[in-house]
Amino acid sequence: MPKPATSQPTPIPSRATKYEQVADTIAHLIETGTYRPGDRIPSVRKLSAQQHVSVTTILQAYVVLENRGLVEARPQSGYYVRAHIPRPAPEPEISTPQSDPAQVSVRELTMMVLHDTSNPDLVQLGTAVPNPSLLPTAKLNRILSAVARETGVKSAEYDFPPGCEALRVQVAQRAVAAGCHLSPADVVTTSGCIEAVQLSLRAVCRPGDTVAIESPSYFGMLQALEALNLRALEIPTHPRDGISLQALRFAIEHTPVHACLVNSNFHNPLGSCPPDDLKKELVALLARDEIPLIENDVSGEIYFGEHRPAVARAYDRKGLVLLCSSFSKDLAPGYRVGWVAPGKFKSAVEWLKFTSNIGTATLAQYAIAEFLADGGYDHHLRRIRRAYARHVTLMSQAVMRAFPDGTRVTRPQGGYVLWIQLPGAIDSLQLYRLSLRAGIAITPGYIFSATDRYRHFIRLNAAFWGEREERAVQRLGQLIASFRA
Amino acid sequence: MPKPATSQPTPIPSRATKYEQVADTIAHLIETGTYRPGDRIPSVRKLSAQQHVSVTTILQAYVVLENRGLVEARPQSGYYVRAHIPRPAPEPEISTPQSDPAQVSVRELTMMVLHDTSNPDLVQLGTAVPNPSLLPTAKLNRILSAVARETGVKSAEYDFPPGCEALRVQVAQRAVAAGCHLSPADVVTTSGCIEAVQLSLRAVCRPGDTVAIESPSYFGMLQALEALNLRALEIPTHPRDGISLQALRFAIEHTPVHACLVNSNFHNPLGSCPPDDLKKELVALLARDEIPLIENDVSGEIYFGEHRPAVARAYDRKGLVLLCSSFSKDLAPGYRVGWVAPGKFKSAVEWLKFTSNIGTATLAQYAIAEFLADGGYDHHLRRIRRAYARHVTLMSQAVMRAFPDGTRVTRPQGGYVLWIQLPGAIDSLQLYRLSLRAGIAITPGYIFSATDRYRHFIRLNAAFWGEREERAVQRLGQLIASFRA
Repeated sequence: MPKPATSQPTPIPSRATKYEQVADTIAHLIETGTYRPGDRIPSVRKLSAQQHVSVTTILQAYVVLENRGLVEARPQSGYYVRAHIPRPAPEPEISTPQSDPAQVSVRELTMMVLHDTSNPDLVQLGTAVPNPSLLPTAKLNRILSAVARETGVKSAEYDFPPGCEALRVQVAQRAVAAGCHLSPADVVTTSGCIEAVQLSLRAVCRPGDTVAIESPSYFGMLQALEALNLRALEIPTHPRDGISLQALRFAIEHTPVHACLVNSNFHNPLGSCPPDDLKKELVALLARDEIPLIENDVSGEIYFGEHRPAVARAYDRKGLVLLCSSFSKDLAPGYRVGWVAPGKFKSAVEWLKFTSNIGTATLAQYAIAEFLADGGYDHHLRRIRRAYARHVTLMSQAVMRAFPDGTRVTRPQGGYVLWIQLPGAIDSLQLYRLSLRAGIAITPGYIFSATDRYRHFIRLNAAFWGEREERAVQRLGQLIASFRA
Repeated sequence: MPKPATSQPTPIPSRATKYEQVADTIAHLIETGTYRPGDRIPSVRKLSAQQHVSVTTILQAYVVLENRGLVEARPQSGYYVRAHIPRPAPEPEISTPQSDPAQVSVRELTMMVLHDTSNPDLVQLGTAVPNPSLLPTAKLNRILSAVARETGVKSAEYDFPPGCEALRVQVAQRAVAAGCHLSPADVVTTSGCIEAVQLSLRAVCRPGDTVAIESPSYFGMLQALEALNLRALEIPTHPRDGISLQALRFAIEHTPVHACLVNSNFHNPLGSCPPDDLKKELVALLARDEIPLIENDVSGEIYFGEHRPAVARAYDRKGLVLLCSSFSKDLAPGYRVGWVAPGKFKSAVEWLKFTSNIGTATLAQYAIAEFLADGGYDHHLRRIRRAYARHVTLMSQAVMRAFPDGTRVTRPQGGYVLWIQLPGAIDSLQLYRLSLRAGIAITPGYIFSATDRYRHFIRLNAAFWGEREERAVQRLGQLIASFRA
């Protein structure tokens, strides 16, 4: 039967007969992956009721689908998608933008980098995810299962803000080591640290406000600011001592600053960790003008030295510091459990949390609270601190061996990322593209600034360090050399 | 030793000696619940290192705490909080605002109502939470445990937007019954339906924009609008047919409307469900002016009739309808798993999801995908549809028996809430307070509007219907009668 031309912009072309329309609809759903090989498609009776079409029409449609080789009838059972369907061509593996670097927005580039991190075929030096083999996943999942059995119906119920009390008790207890005296009532649980920061920003700022941040800054923070219509004021930041107080003071004196956002301990990507005195000074400087400080301490537990560094919140006397963290770097990124101690902004943060997603996932909070309470956490932390310290050192040495003279590398005392300044005119976006083609994911410096300051920088993740990663660093060195030739 | 007066606004008063300061700090942490009876407090050695204070000072501090009866030393083990600590007085059970109703903001009242829902001593007719005994929690938790074992390390890893593919396949398959042809690539997973709506609002609106919504509207939606600095334009809504298209058309013609947000099937609190023709007309009306429609279909599966009602998205030809839903009403509120099919706004929604909380919790998504795939879901839905239909009917009858003449009650054909218009001058906020004192939580009509339209309405949740709830409805009737006397 000849197909009449159609001008409708619908994915399912309109046809002469009703049963062909139904067949086309199902075929489309099979082609786009809604029904997959082996899936049962809806019964004739069910589809007839759903689509307000006669049983006869559906039966005719299913015969059409059989004839096209898409489905097969199984006696007494129904119609199933056939095992061997011509599948659409696989999507391109790597998104390599054809445009000039200057034309790619930070937002697009960020989502592209994120996409590349889901590609298991690449050597992952790009995103700052923890090494799965250094997460206590099996143990944590066992605890989750046990907690699910013990808590019964409660485990599936909403957990309204401020969230799971058992977890807030553990957070308050652990804060003591960071010099911070929290009560469980000071804490609101969140879906990770980014959410904690985002809620904090919304609690203290209005759209259009200016937020002072370190430069460079983790791209997730910059994107959060952009998404909230906030302006980032980038403050010079020392690779060991953190945000420059002189520059911040100057900024505050010369422009309205509505909040300050810092990644205090083991900054991403710098690895900086200001001495306690500087943290105290930072808090005092901001408190003078009643400027809220949002403090991201997500990597604070991953220190290589003797002691856990203090948090700026330890020096807060006015309730102006909103301390944010999570268990995504040391326990379970995928559990999405974090927290914020919002100081005097607590009721605003609770309200914003409710309007954002009601509350944090219940079971995951109980499981992490139990993991923290049962005593295995400190042992686990000691283990990963040693491992990451070693990885960071080895990667740094490998970079210095493989990269050309003039390369500069940070010396982080915690966390697991390195921030690398490339020599000369080497563009990190070009290197990013070249390295993707070589099967290696890195993070180009571009996305760590809203003002294009880090064109010649890259961030590397040392978390996975091993032979494969060592070869990747050598290959990066060769790629950089090929540039300069 | 006499205590010197202190003028500092810190919770821990400053004292003459260092060891007393340390003792006060620990005592404060015990009093506020950070360390609880039976908890071990940090070892002398650890605290000494953390606080940069000598071991002797810490030892002296711990002796002070022992003398105060707060901690006890256990040989070879350390210091523990004593089992019987004089605890601070319990918090008042119920927050009954002393102010005049007009002075309580909708925001405060909403958080107060939410707080009351966490009170297990109240008969819960207030919030629209599902009945836990009608959730398949044990089965779902077993699936979660099995999935955790099977997926191993992957279960703890980030799941970046668009989120778990297995879940997106299931969502796309089930959408067929709602008249909607989605491919898995059309779907982004979220932390519940509110988050789906919130991300959608942010994708299509800028702060200050106007959003047309049904009146009344679920308070969570109104609060989300307020939190995003969006203006709610309340459109008259029929208790069965939903949003008035005449009124919406008039509104669009006379004021800039940047988006429309509807709760299409079994509206909360009205229970309305527009006929398919009206949904089609709604989509066409908005499409004419390219106005995005955010459609909340969270209760669409809980229909009492023969067929699942269609979603407005079924009639979308321009990618302007952002369809939002979750598994919080029928499977597991506490899992916080929902989704959005954002039409042509998909990349914006994915980006906003990343900037909000990176991604949705990994394991919970896998578990729900598995529950949907294994075939038990339809059986479960048939069971809860029957139960909720019965509960809604019985509660409605009980209300008509117990409440005074002139009371009006909705007749929902799905979901599990009733919207009740009280006769005469009965103020729902006064009734809310009186009923709390009688041990019953209801939701006052106030919070379903930003413009104080529903002073004489209440919402009741029929999900828990049983003898206790029946007595509570009788008691409400008596309270209302006492008002009028």
